[in-house]
Amino acid sequence: MSRIRPLSGFPELLPSQRVVEQYVLDRLRTTFELHGFANIETRAVEPMAQLARKGEIDKEIYVLRRLSADPASADGDDLGLHFDLTVPFARYVLENAGHLAFPFRRYQIQKVWRGERPQEGRYREFTQADIDIVGENVLAAHHDVEVPLVMLEALEALHAAVGLPPVLMRVNNRQLAEGFYRGLDIEDTGAVLQRVDKLEKIGPEAVVETLGEIGLTGERAAKVVDLARIRTDDESFVDQVRSLGVQHELLDQGLELLSAVVAAARQSVPGRLVADLSIARGLDYYTGTVYETQLVGYESMGSISSGGRYDSLASDGKQTYPGVGISLGVSRMLVPLLAKGRLVASRSVPTAVLVAVTDESTRDDADAVARSLRARGIPTEVAPKADKFGKQIRHADRRGIPYVWFGGADGEVKDIRSGDQVAATASSWEPPAEDRTVRVTGSWA
Amino acid sequence: MSRIRPLSGFPELLPSQRVVEQYVLDRLRTTFELHGFANIETRAVEPMAQLARKGEIDKEIYVLRRLSADPASADGDDLGLHFDLTVPFARYVLENAGHLAFPFRRYQIQKVWRGERPQEGRYREFTQADIDIVGENVLAAHHDVEVPLVMLEALEALHAAVGLPPVLMRVNNRQLAEGFYRGLDIEDTGAVLQRVDKLEKIGPEAVVETLGEIGLTGERAAKVVDLARIRTDDESFVDQVRSLGVQHELLDQGLELLSAVVAAARQSVPGRLVADLSIARGLDYYTGTVYETQLVGYESMGSISSGGRYDSLASDGKQTYPGVGISLGVSRMLVPLLAKGRLVASRSVPTAVLVAVTDESTRDDADAVARSLRARGIPTEVAPKADKFGKQIRHADRRGIPYVWFGGADGEVKDIRSGDQVAATASSWEPPAEDRTVRVTGSWA
Repeated sequence: MSRIRPLSGFPELLPSQRVVEQYVLDRLRTTFELHGFANIETRAVEPMAQLARKGEIDKEIYVLRRLSADPASADGDDLGLHFDLTVPFARYVLENAGHLAFPFRRYQIQKVWRGERPQEGRYREFTQADIDIVGENVLAAHHDVEVPLVMLEALEALHAAVGLPPVLMRVNNRQLAEGFYRGLDIEDTGAVLQRVDKLEKIGPEAVVETLGEIGLTGERAAKVVDLARIRTDDESFVDQVRSLGVQHELLDQGLELLSAVVAAARQSVPGRLVADLSIARGLDYYTGTVYETQLVGYESMGSISSGGRYDSLASDGKQTYPGVGISLGVSRMLVPLLAKGRLVASRSVPTAVLVAVTDESTRDDADAVARSLRARGIPTEVAPKADKFGKQIRHADRRGIPYVWFGGADGEVKDIRSGDQVAATASSWEPPAEDRTVRVTGSWA
Repeated sequence: MSRIRPLSGFPELLPSQRVVEQYVLDRLRTTFELHGFANIETRAVEPMAQLARKGEIDKEIYVLRRLSADPASADGDDLGLHFDLTVPFARYVLENAGHLAFPFRRYQIQKVWRGERPQEGRYREFTQADIDIVGENVLAAHHDVEVPLVMLEALEALHAAVGLPPVLMRVNNRQLAEGFYRGLDIEDTGAVLQRVDKLEKIGPEAVVETLGEIGLTGERAAKVVDLARIRTDDESFVDQVRSLGVQHELLDQGLELLSAVVAAARQSVPGRLVADLSIARGLDYYTGTVYETQLVGYESMGSISSGGRYDSLASDGKQTYPGVGISLGVSRMLVPLLAKGRLVASRSVPTAVLVAVTDESTRDDADAVARSLRARGIPTEVAPKADKFGKQIRHADRRGIPYVWFGGADGEVKDIRSGDQVAATASSWEPPAEDRTVRVTGSWA
């Protein structure tokens, strides 16, 4: 066998790390389902014609070829691996529109692939968890408020359960900026947005300079930068924008919607969301509210959860499907935390009880004890070998299994952490609830 | 947007079908974890050098290429999508052997890809659920008994819960056949096995004929076919084999091990497992017990769950890793049953309660009711629009949501199936347990 080495950009987890990931995914699922999001999975591949529509990303696509395909004849398929869950979801909506009830609320937790040069925090294969609400021709503005709150509630549940650092979601609205720019008689609003997006990286003076390059100078450039520097955790941003003295109908709409988001978040997840008028989000398809999210204390990770409103996620020529969605970069968030040992599982296996085997002739008795425990939902395995008991206890210890059972149905059970050993009956003994399943805890010292 | 069409060989499910798949996957996970199997996921790709080792399958590999890669320079990676979960697992064991405790019990539920020509029941992308136990240098024979019982228990749980048809697992042992052939002084036992494998398809006379082609004739050929025709649901196959009068040490070992499997299955899952001495399983790496499984009444699906013992799953030159495993073809089993409507979900969304909105000015009150219900784990969504109540009820009905809430925290809740409407308080009302989450039921008329 050729030499085995990890592939850069394709993170894999050890069993005890996977326990943590599974726990996080289960929690996300619970929150999403509590809010009525239905799960779907889409195939890993899309026709290249679909994938290549998003110009800015097409260099990162993995293209597929059947090994046995005749290179001279096009195989007809021409498929690539999806690089996000939005493009496949848009295609799924169009393909199944007749079978879906709109507004359609879905969550989707899958791997995506990007064939980019690996670097710190960038992966070639990673897991995303997306929620979106998509309407048929129309989608009410209150969903722009709802979607970020659901994601914040999911992250807050993890914060409460395992001490995942709190998050800060920064929200803006493209209509707000668009209206403000138009109120300043700026025509190429996209070019301005692109430059303002660099504010955090290069600072206000440098942004003013780059605005000058496209002919925007003086008071107008200053107001553009002043707008982008507004950041409040309540609705006071509205007054700050108003004080800049710019008027436009789109600006009014944007202010109203962003206020609604901030007000709702203050009520249900206080301290976790701010209006930040510097947030632009690069992707063309966003048309209204935009979100991005940092893990407090881990800002260098970049945004772990981003999204926004898109007025035309998909269109088949007759109907359009506006949507609003937000995506959580599960691997982006978890892989560094797991590598640092910040989130740990109480054991590397589901097993709560190891049934010891006295000698191979009594393995059947041990199997019967295990069946009896499993029948009441207690994860149990039987020792693989009738070794000396000390060795069987070490077998449990190495895996973090808390209990070892000795003897038959009326036997004894030892808590190998405390050493306590008590008489027990297989048909009725119960481990404490906290030992029944693997626990995940945070270590944020 | 270019025309949308399903891709042949890449099955996708509607939300209500995905509910069923998710339910089945959850049940499998529960059973596997009850037996102490730890979950892992491996990356979707392996180096082609790893994948291409399995000669018989290499035409079906999807090879990856980065769209932006310079075609003139090898990108260095040369990756393909995995076509099963065994090859990646073997690589994972070698790569992480220092961090794993052996015997290592793992389950793995992931998609795999095969670039073959699609045909009935064959997919290019499908989900498999594998369990394996792998040892370091040695793995006790009792795991050959354990592994099929765990998979049978998982399938039996689905049979009991949703009426999934019962299964019949057919088990053989390669040592048994190998010993029998050697006892008949046959040298090329592989060539014989290959021909015997066709018994079910072409019948005993035709097998005798093809055995003649490799010089095996008369009584010896007759005994080979007689052996393969033995099939019993208890240990009586041993006497039937003995009556053929062939002696060999390997035969004795094989008989003993196969007896143990049959005896254990008769005790824990009676009627679900038979010794069937015609089973060969094509793959080279099996060295002992082999399993395959049919869904009773759906035999044309082929084997939904197969596996066996391999004495060297992986080796790094110093250590070898023998294993025994079995794989369930989740898509192979479920996709046809879903297409036929045999397994159905009680609703297409997780939502148990839709909170109606009287007018948009009271949406906050509806949101508060929803929060209150969700706080007690009741999946709830708020009506997207303050339509007439009849329309809001239809919104729930189309999705199968059983309850609609009217008014504020002290309001009324209607069971839209019966029409019953009662006063209810959001902080204390509970739906019946069977309505809380989506139910999956079988329809096997």
